[in-house]
Amino acid sequence: MAGDFKVTPWEVTGDIDYDLLAERFGTTAIDEKTLSRMKKYGELHMMLRRNIFYSHRDLNVIFDEYEKGNKFVLYTGRGPSGHTHLGHIMPWMFNKWMQDVFGVEMHFQLTDDEKFLFKQDATLQETKRMAYENALDFIALGFDPKLTKIILDTENIKTMYPIALKVAKKINLSTAKAVFGFDNTTNIGSIFYTSMQSVPAFLPSELAGHNVPVLIPCGIDQDPHFRACRDVAQGLGYLKPCQIYCKMFPGLSGSDKMSSSDPFSTIYTTDNAKEVKKKVGKAFTGGCVSVDEQREKGGNPEVCAIFKYNYYLFENDDEKLNELTIKCRSGKILCGECKVALTEKINKFLEEHQAKREKAKDVIHDMTFEGFRW
Amino acid sequence: MAGDFKVTPWEVTGDIDYDLLAERFGTTAIDEKTLSRMKKYGELHMMLRRNIFYSHRDLNVIFDEYEKGNKFVLYTGRGPSGHTHLGHIMPWMFNKWMQDVFGVEMHFQLTDDEKFLFKQDATLQETKRMAYENALDFIALGFDPKLTKIILDTENIKTMYPIALKVAKKINLSTAKAVFGFDNTTNIGSIFYTSMQSVPAFLPSELAGHNVPVLIPCGIDQDPHFRACRDVAQGLGYLKPCQIYCKMFPGLSGSDKMSSSDPFSTIYTTDNAKEVKKKVGKAFTGGCVSVDEQREKGGNPEVCAIFKYNYYLFENDDEKLNELTIKCRSGKILCGECKVALTEKINKFLEEHQAKREKAKDVIHDMTFEGFRW
Repeated sequence: MAGDFKVTPWEVTGDIDYDLLAERFGTTAIDEKTLSRMKKYGELHMMLRRNIFYSHRDLNVIFDEYEKGNKFVLYTGRGPSGHTHLGHIMPWMFNKWMQDVFGVEMHFQLTDDEKFLFKQDATLQETKRMAYENALDFIALGFDPKLTKIILDTENIKTMYPIALKVAKKINLSTAKAVFGFDNTTNIGSIFYTSMQSVPAFLPSELAGHNVPVLIPCGIDQDPHFRACRDVAQGLGYLKPCQIYCKMFPGLSGSDKMSSSDPFSTIYTTDNAKEVKKKVGKAFTGGCVSVDEQREKGGNPEVCAIFKYNYYLFENDDEKLNELTIKCRSGKILCGECKVALTEKINKFLEEHQAKREKAKDVIHDMTFEGFRW
Repeated sequence: MAGDFKVTPWEVTGDIDYDLLAERFGTTAIDEKTLSRMKKYGELHMMLRRNIFYSHRDLNVIFDEYEKGNKFVLYTGRGPSGHTHLGHIMPWMFNKWMQDVFGVEMHFQLTDDEKFLFKQDATLQETKRMAYENALDFIALGFDPKLTKIILDTENIKTMYPIALKVAKKINLSTAKAVFGFDNTTNIGSIFYTSMQSVPAFLPSELAGHNVPVLIPCGIDQDPHFRACRDVAQGLGYLKPCQIYCKMFPGLSGSDKMSSSDPFSTIYTTDNAKEVKKKVGKAFTGGCVSVDEQREKGGNPEVCAIFKYNYYLFENDDEKLNELTIKCRSGKILCGECKVALTEKINKFLEEHQAKREKAKDVIHDMTFEGFRW
């Protein structure tokens, strides 16, 4: 049924209608006018051209301030429940591009407390360990070590807690239930947690001693947190943080969101070439049941996970992507060929990424907020 | 109406029926058998003899462990919303006696986060400052500096937060609403807060690396926190903390609980002799409307705030207290005389206390947990 989907920071189910989702959340579409404005700063990122980063809150405020010489801080994050997969990497790449284009600070929050609270069998030791693993992937993408800080909630809590308390005091249970869908079975840590996710939105202002604009590029599933955060900002004397939101990275099975709960549909940054080949080989495609039929009728890239992977991440060249679309629809290329090509691309990316990830171990402790160590 | 009273950690209203309250909370009366057992360790404290500390949870477990050579840790606390008054001092004196008798560690928690969250106009700067003032009063009572640690939630949060998270994960909203009476208007920080008050119950075990029994002497109004805390203890692999509860210290106006919301009914440790004289002078007594009538009919010590102050705090000698009762009932002593005598006692106490309080400033930073500084 159309509209029969659910998106919260902790659950994505059904077939997402992204325009309807933005409407439900009350976020603004990134239109041609906004894209034109962004072109002034640099060539548009593929994820903007393709409407993957597609919605926002007050992006123009960020650019207005930037043009007045008031640099913003980028903030994104990760709930460290397991190894990093391509779905996490995608918005981080966009963050890296933003840092390069605007030359701004980047704060990366690892919410080990969140994952402990929301995941039944998680321990704090595990979520902290996975935070380390995830941070390596983030650093491997090439963020500027001088401009980038990694925040780990349980390690940086002394600085974060007073800000979280101020936020928490302004959000009542009624709001939390309405925004996040909490009920009587929700634990009281989970109910408090959104206050912690608000902290990096206000931390740059606290550190600077004056208001600093913050832009949060992340998946649109995180909007409930930042809606609550924006609601309390002004009452606390802070600027409202602004957001730029992307769609969810699809799973190989054809689902709307790559998820660790379906490991065969998920490519981790730590996968080896053989695993990738196997997973991509089993991916859902838009092909026909037989080669003959496909040669005759063509495939359907719109539903094809392989095509989506090229679209979202692995084919930066619009021209080539267009050619691929035409070839697929006309039956000139078969799913097997596409799978081989994508496997090669992914493995090339992962080989390089894994090398950078190893090197990240040498610098990770230079990039932690307040110098904490794992 | 009998039973028409309300006691929560944040609100006490109506005329408290303490036996009914203990029944509602499900705590156990301190009976003759328990008192006999306690006599083995030392002469009973006045507050035990007079049934001021009157109810408990698992006190015998503490003594069983103690007799096996397994020393317990004492834990009590204070929500630093304002200056210390006699109502706060009372259970702290009992804690001091317990430390002396058993030679055990004492952990004193100052919940600056709590007071910030629950008090509409409080700031964290103020609650932290009042925590310092309150800590001086605590230290002034003579706790052993080698065995006593002062915990301040926002300062010690890095050690406390992981324990609080474990507690929070085990308490759901339904329980929090039932135990504390929260509703949709409650802020999400207040809902989480009880997890922080549980931390010192488990901290000694975390620090020692093995389970350490904890005994919490405090006002019975705090029982909802520790009921919730005890419920989650075993699931987290900790011992249940045990409690020994006192009645509320009465206000000078005749109310059941001395409260900062009624400053004329409240004697602060920082009051000067003139203020004390004025406040005691206005106190509610059990006297008659005229001297003649009182000489004839006698007074009623049961309802008299002046008598209660002697009973709870200022007349340690049971014999003398008994004489006072007889004199009052028979009209041999008038309210004015009692007021003068009590004023003298309070001012003598405060003069000495204030001197010790000044000296406490020299040692306070040697007694903070993890060495934090105000």
